[in-house]
Amino acid sequence: MSFERISEARSHGGSQGVYKHQSRATGTEMTFSVFVPDHQSGARLPLLWYLSGLTCTSANVTEKGEFRAACAEHGIIFVAPDTSPRGPGVPDDSEGAWDFGLGAGFYVDATERPWSEHYQMWSYVTDELPALIADEFPVDMERQGITGHSMGGHGAMTVALRYPERFGSVSAFAPIVAPSQVPWGKKALSQYLGPDQTAWRGHDAVALIEDGARIDELLVDVGTADSFLDKELKPELLEAACRDAGIALTLNRRLGYDHSYYFISTFMADHVRWHAEHLNR
Amino acid sequence: MSFERISEARSHGGSQGVYKHQSRATGTEMTFSVFVPDHQSGARLPLLWYLSGLTCTSANVTEKGEFRAACAEHGIIFVAPDTSPRGPGVPDDSEGAWDFGLGAGFYVDATERPWSEHYQMWSYVTDELPALIADEFPVDMERQGITGHSMGGHGAMTVALRYPERFGSVSAFAPIVAPSQVPWGKKALSQYLGPDQTAWRGHDAVALIEDGARIDELLVDVGTADSFLDKELKPELLEAACRDAGIALTLNRRLGYDHSYYFISTFMADHVRWHAEHLNR
Repeated sequence: MSFERISEARSHGGSQGVYKHQSRATGTEMTFSVFVPDHQSGARLPLLWYLSGLTCTSANVTEKGEFRAACAEHGIIFVAPDTSPRGPGVPDDSEGAWDFGLGAGFYVDATERPWSEHYQMWSYVTDELPALIADEFPVDMERQGITGHSMGGHGAMTVALRYPERFGSVSAFAPIVAPSQVPWGKKALSQYLGPDQTAWRGHDAVALIEDGARIDELLVDVGTADSFLDKELKPELLEAACRDAGIALTLNRRLGYDHSYYFISTFMADHVRWHAEHLNR
Repeated sequence: MSFERISEARSHGGSQGVYKHQSRATGTEMTFSVFVPDHQSGARLPLLWYLSGLTCTSANVTEKGEFRAACAEHGIIFVAPDTSPRGPGVPDDSEGAWDFGLGAGFYVDATERPWSEHYQMWSYVTDELPALIADEFPVDMERQGITGHSMGGHGAMTVALRYPERFGSVSAFAPIVAPSQVPWGKKALSQYLGPDQTAWRGHDAVALIEDGARIDELLVDVGTADSFLDKELKPELLEAACRDAGIALTLNRRLGYDHSYYFISTFMADHVRWHAEHLNR
């Protein structure tokens, strides 16, 4: 597999890189970032995936996420993919909306035209990019955790629920827990996957749990001042589903915090530590 | 004094605000950011000024600086001004260079036309903005520290050397220590202050120390992989001046670190702690 370094810089006792490669899954060039803490030669470190939210690229969390100090402390590699294909020939929302199309791939393999040609983010984050990371970085693929924000929290939970054997830890910041039931999700899933809502259930954390998917534990933080809380995130639906399914959900409602990286960065170190406790067991 | 809130968000157990106001000094609207940790009602907290580098606004450190956790831990208010006037009628470098004009005010009061009308950043950061901060935020102006990056490290050191009674602590990240002797500084000072280099000495940390200005202590971090180290920063000139003057300089050369916020954010908590130790004595 080939990939190209865009930049690498020393930070917090490790190396923060930004890379690009030609993706088979999306048929486009894709950018991603990887933080590798200093480690003994030959060591293989646990790996934390971070899936970003609407409008983001890998740059947002890389610049604002405040994950490096904690990842260096716990010896965890942090990988941040992009949120959609980009580039010439990649279709976007007809009105340029920020919640669909570019920056809003929703971590699904689109089946509907014109999206199906490039919007194959499920295959990208579950198959192609993990294979590249396993080949090219000093990771221990037996010790993977996954987290994400908003649309990326949706992505993290759905990926983990469908590959529970792959992940030792799962968390999310302000996730969309039931896209089938909220405006952002309905808009995206109907266009990427078509009107048949049975296809949506494989990309809806609450529906997956209702249909029998299981993980042991889940850590979620949401801000009480998040303007999307009631309409798009609906953590109470996740709470109910986890209760019924016997999934140990820790849901922290953070007083006064919003949906931004000011919120994410505040609780990032807690999440990294939680993943480390699970992955370094 | 009046100012306007652009945004406020809860972060790391405090409030991160971005504000704007009409500046008398620059004759323009100016934006700045302030982080206020939670505190007891009526308390007045120490204040750390952060002056930013070339091309930056207050947003860079606000988003990437990773100062909030440390400021919240130590109970320090963090203020970040912009680096130049901006807006209609503000002249810029004739070729749009990034190291002069907009984003490159060099913390001087320009005396040369056309810069003198708006480029009054010295008065702005030493007089007008401190008065606004003192009036509008819960600060203890008897406990001020100052730091900055690159051009802002230059600004922090020159301001502290000329107002030593005002600051209980001074530090810098990768500062321009002797602008009179390096390309960035010569370009800026000759245009803002004119060809007479005697006027430059009041805005050159090494020259100020040579001319008798004194502070007790100074903390400086630089990266050994900083591409501007040899040509623009020249920390060895500061080392020699501090040695000759009996100023206790702690100069940390950080192996492999560059000039970016990947470097700054790594050592920010160390600097905040150092300021806290001095300001909370």
